[in-house]
Amino acid sequence: MQSLKAITMKPDWIAVDWGTTNMRVWAIGAGGEVLSQATSDKGMGGLTPDAFEPALLELVTSWLPDDRVIDVIACGMVGARQGWVEAAYGKVPCAPFAEENTIHFSALNERMRVHIIAGLQQDNPADVMRGEETQIAGLLADDPDFEGVVCAPGTHTKWVRIESGKIVHFATHLTGEMFSLLADKSVLRHTTASEGWDEAEFLRAFAAALGEPDKITAHLFSVRAEALIGDLSPQAARSRLSALLLGLEFNATREDWSGQKAAIIGSDALAKIYQQALLSQGADPIILDGEALTLAGLKAARDKIILKEIT
Amino acid sequence: MQSLKAITMKPDWIAVDWGTTNMRVWAIGAGGEVLSQATSDKGMGGLTPDAFEPALLELVTSWLPDDRVIDVIACGMVGARQGWVEAAYGKVPCAPFAEENTIHFSALNERMRVHIIAGLQQDNPADVMRGEETQIAGLLADDPDFEGVVCAPGTHTKWVRIESGKIVHFATHLTGEMFSLLADKSVLRHTTASEGWDEAEFLRAFAAALGEPDKITAHLFSVRAEALIGDLSPQAARSRLSALLLGLEFNATREDWSGQKAAIIGSDALAKIYQQALLSQGADPIILDGEALTLAGLKAARDKIILKEIT
Repeated sequence: MQSLKAITMKPDWIAVDWGTTNMRVWAIGAGGEVLSQATSDKGMGGLTPDAFEPALLELVTSWLPDDRVIDVIACGMVGARQGWVEAAYGKVPCAPFAEENTIHFSALNERMRVHIIAGLQQDNPADVMRGEETQIAGLLADDPDFEGVVCAPGTHTKWVRIESGKIVHFATHLTGEMFSLLADKSVLRHTTASEGWDEAEFLRAFAAALGEPDKITAHLFSVRAEALIGDLSPQAARSRLSALLLGLEFNATREDWSGQKAAIIGSDALAKIYQQALLSQGADPIILDGEALTLAGLKAARDKIILKEIT
Repeated sequence: MQSLKAITMKPDWIAVDWGTTNMRVWAIGAGGEVLSQATSDKGMGGLTPDAFEPALLELVTSWLPDDRVIDVIACGMVGARQGWVEAAYGKVPCAPFAEENTIHFSALNERMRVHIIAGLQQDNPADVMRGEETQIAGLLADDPDFEGVVCAPGTHTKWVRIESGKIVHFATHLTGEMFSLLADKSVLRHTTASEGWDEAEFLRAFAAALGEPDKITAHLFSVRAEALIGDLSPQAARSRLSALLLGLEFNATREDWSGQKAAIIGSDALAKIYQQALLSQGADPIILDGEALTLAGLKAARDKIILKEIT
């Protein structure tokens, strides 16, 4: 039985989402079902090129079949210049899966054939992504007719415009990183709470900020001054700071979300803030699970790669 | 001779500029001339209230007369809530020297009578200053008819609008602090030089940023992306980053400087960048020395205090 179970557990292929700070792997069965999964903190940021394969094997060795080569489909920073093997960016406008830029190679462990999905670049304005393209491929695999904008909130939030199955434009916003730096490292830290939320203050300040993007540098200092001479609470200061920066971002992306179908990737607190901001402007975004999208995108890429290798 | 020299060196009064990170004192003669000066790193930020007088005495004890009380006129963060004695803010619009809010008290050392000049606050938008009001009092003492804007570049740059001898509006911009955080702590640090300057890139990017303040969050990430996929040099990235943030600030302050007489306080590299930015927009700012303005402002305040005590 032990041996039979071990055999039935062997996956059909392996999916990998390899980011800067961590990696996640899934063992996928012949029917597309997830048989097992594992994570590690061995992200691209801490690895030299020859450390990628050992880091992967730490998680997947028990999944490898004895009698054949298994496909490992990976997306994310693993394909960056500092990654395992560089996969040159595809160029938008294009379909999210830049098939011709995918890197295929046999690992030192001969039971693994690795396929690294390329990220995308935009020449003007200059921008890059590695990983989100696979989530969007997953979205389009499920809903090929999706037209509108996909927002992936995070430290570097991405807004991606989709038309006719292609990514036609995208922009990365430093909003999340600016929020962290200002809340934790600037003079505002003295009067800004590290957690807590004042929804009314957020919605009021967000609406105001949308109308005055050019006043941001002064409004930021007002968060400090109002705490000194007024009665702005640390929680309200945190919500105000978020609203000011998000107001700036929503101004910049207005033609992406205004009157457009919008989808937000993620379900954490930040994704909920983006949802609230969009709802306040009359948009009604759908909320998508990031992990499910990544898996769907890796599966869609795998299907194309296998099909191509057969034909 | 020794004793005679010591006597002639005794100042008429003492001027103090006490900031967050350091303090500077001047011994002023009967004719307003500077007899001596000294500095220390005992700024307000590191002192408890009872540590101010000892910190001051470290620098001025030898200047104190034996036979009378000497006036010590101080401005800056020494009057903050966390300072020596709090001087409540005056409220704009008002003359820069908020005479009625000045704090007068005898020090524990009975030879010193201390006068702390109050900072100013603005209720809406909320803003505060402590120190710049004295520099502006110095400017107006020298040029009572000055009308226009005074810009004091720094970590927190202040733009101060002056009409009919009064400060009618001011705004503090976090631009300098944002530049440092983004250049040194954000993802941009990997591709941004810590020094060096590309003037052509600065002027090009500044002009572009002035026209698109709402695109800032995306343009910041482009500084990173262009270094990755284009040929943006680390020096050009530094100049671009500065231009983007300054463009935002100049948009916010357009009605202050456009078509107005402008003065910049300071002569360091940052002041020169502000001068260059104003010149590129057709303004022709005068450059003023910050220390000379502070001294002139302290002297003007002292004259009013003495006059009031006599009458």
